[in-house]
Amino acid sequence: MKLASLKAGRDGRLVVVSNDLAWFADAGQIAPTLQAALDDWGRCEPLLRGLAESLEHGATTSERFHEHEAASPLPRAYQWADGSAYVNHVDLVRRARGASLPESFWTDPLMYQGGSDGFLGPRDPIPLADEAWGCDLEGEVAVITGDVPQGVTPQAALDCIRLVMLVNDVSLRGLIPDELAKGFGFFQSKPASAFSPVAVTPDSLGPAWRDGRLHGPLEVELNGALLGQPDAGIDMTFDFGRLIAHAAKTRSLCAGTIIGSGTVSNRGEGGSPGKPIAEGGVGYSCLAEQRSVEAIAHGAPRTPFLRFGDRVRIEMRDGRRHSVFGAIEQEVTRV
Amino acid sequence: MKLASLKAGRDGRLVVVSNDLAWFADAGQIAPTLQAALDDWGRCEPLLRGLAESLEHGATTSERFHEHEAASPLPRAYQWADGSAYVNHVDLVRRARGASLPESFWTDPLMYQGGSDGFLGPRDPIPLADEAWGCDLEGEVAVITGDVPQGVTPQAALDCIRLVMLVNDVSLRGLIPDELAKGFGFFQSKPASAFSPVAVTPDSLGPAWRDGRLHGPLEVELNGALLGQPDAGIDMTFDFGRLIAHAAKTRSLCAGTIIGSGTVSNRGEGGSPGKPIAEGGVGYSCLAEQRSVEAIAHGAPRTPFLRFGDRVRIEMRDGRRHSVFGAIEQEVTRV
Repeated sequence: MKLASLKAGRDGRLVVVSNDLAWFADAGQIAPTLQAALDDWGRCEPLLRGLAESLEHGATTSERFHEHEAASPLPRAYQWADGSAYVNHVDLVRRARGASLPESFWTDPLMYQGGSDGFLGPRDPIPLADEAWGCDLEGEVAVITGDVPQGVTPQAALDCIRLVMLVNDVSLRGLIPDELAKGFGFFQSKPASAFSPVAVTPDSLGPAWRDGRLHGPLEVELNGALLGQPDAGIDMTFDFGRLIAHAAKTRSLCAGTIIGSGTVSNRGEGGSPGKPIAEGGVGYSCLAEQRSVEAIAHGAPRTPFLRFGDRVRIEMRDGRRHSVFGAIEQEVTRV
Repeated sequence: MKLASLKAGRDGRLVVVSNDLAWFADAGQIAPTLQAALDDWGRCEPLLRGLAESLEHGATTSERFHEHEAASPLPRAYQWADGSAYVNHVDLVRRARGASLPESFWTDPLMYQGGSDGFLGPRDPIPLADEAWGCDLEGEVAVITGDVPQGVTPQAALDCIRLVMLVNDVSLRGLIPDELAKGFGFFQSKPASAFSPVAVTPDSLGPAWRDGRLHGPLEVELNGALLGQPDAGIDMTFDFGRLIAHAAKTRSLCAGTIIGSGTVSNRGEGGSPGKPIAEGGVGYSCLAEQRSVEAIAHGAPRTPFLRFGDRVRIEMRDGRRHSVFGAIEQEVTRV
């Protein structure tokens, strides 16, 4: 089952989307918003699945689905907690600034509490005040949970996953060092993120969803050129069960909590940092990694951060090259 | 005007409370929840104020208000961002562990993104799994904002403040050092917070609300004994306008955003750390400060962190000793 929120009011209008992303059926009779459906999932899920089946069979009223009319599946959420499960990403970014990777990072997940009061739509511009802030994209996978009890085990946490989607976790690299040095984590350096037009139930992902991970290449483009296509199922040190359990260690999580994977990142041969697309590698899903590799190889980064007018695109396709979640496609604009 | 959310469903039931906290009138005809009222404040505010006036004059149906029936004013919120505006608190806690205070902390606010997907009710127990986590209370002031535009000035931010309330920002001191060392800020070390039974509009606070600060002693009790009564209007280095502007530097804030002051803390004579209640000082609104002062004076802290069965109480009274926001009163319970 695929769900989306068409732009309407603060929380969007819940619709069921066909598997091929071509059509939608209004789900307002079941729940007005995705959050409302998640709040009452036991009642809503079977009804939504029934509607999805009718939609696939052409047995209900439907309209054309246009990705640009979609808000993020949860246009605002009660929680957005982003892990850093691809430790290769952390390693690379730290290595470029001369910091080593603590051994514990391989066993204890990194996670930060993100702002969730307003997400950008998947085709909304990225509103930037200052290019000097070093704006970067981060291609990630995220899940939306149901209610999660405090102290949940990683295994039981997997059963709490309701939906899977993609993220562009916009980051202001220039603000990160000073902010992290203060010791309280990210705040100004992590402005609003954007999510894919469509959120998908794990069962609808088939074999691409296994071991608590989404498998398949995450295609990330910058101004129409491929920046990276790392496989989201590879080198994800902590699966989503581990990430959810980490978040729920000392408190319960409310239905509608979004847990992110962190920047998808694959190691190269023999555990090396991995090569850029231009050199035959799988590339990167953020500019910071490309810059880190350049810094390691050439002493300084060559790729600039995002500038006004730059366009980024994040998408995942199935084995038949059909888009699974729709595309995040955003242009950086001056505010 | 005073507003509360009686416990009902996930988001409570909005009611208007009389100034003396004795009565309430149902506000469901205006907005079902406080978040719904904040989302449509232009329409709802005059209607709620009309209802509040009727309630004061006995001109509407009313019922007895019982604080223990109240959830936190926003039982869950889209954003909870907590500043650390009383730099004395930061200084003390750092001094106790031998760290100095960077000069920038006096000019650049500290702020962390807190979990907001589920707050404890003001009389709910604090669910703790392990006493060794070093559970502490933190008495604070918080405001709820309307929509705040990106890049707002501190002065304009003051006009975005809709409501003021008190907070117990529960902290797990034992988990903080390792978590902050990872560099991504608090997560597991900051479980669910609790807010006062009632949220109050700034105009209803009279002279206690001025200069973007709440003035008056914040009474904090532990097991019935006064732990502290620091004045919330004193030594608050950054007023709420500054804190909101800090939060909105790189992104807009959604209506219903909660911004916290950080632990209320007054310096002692000549800028000294301040004395405990037992020595004639104004005391502290968290155990960490008391322990820090003990560590500085005696080489080691003497006051333990919270244990199962301990009761904390946080309240503020006006000049006539009437409770302004109702009391947060919680017992630590084993889960």
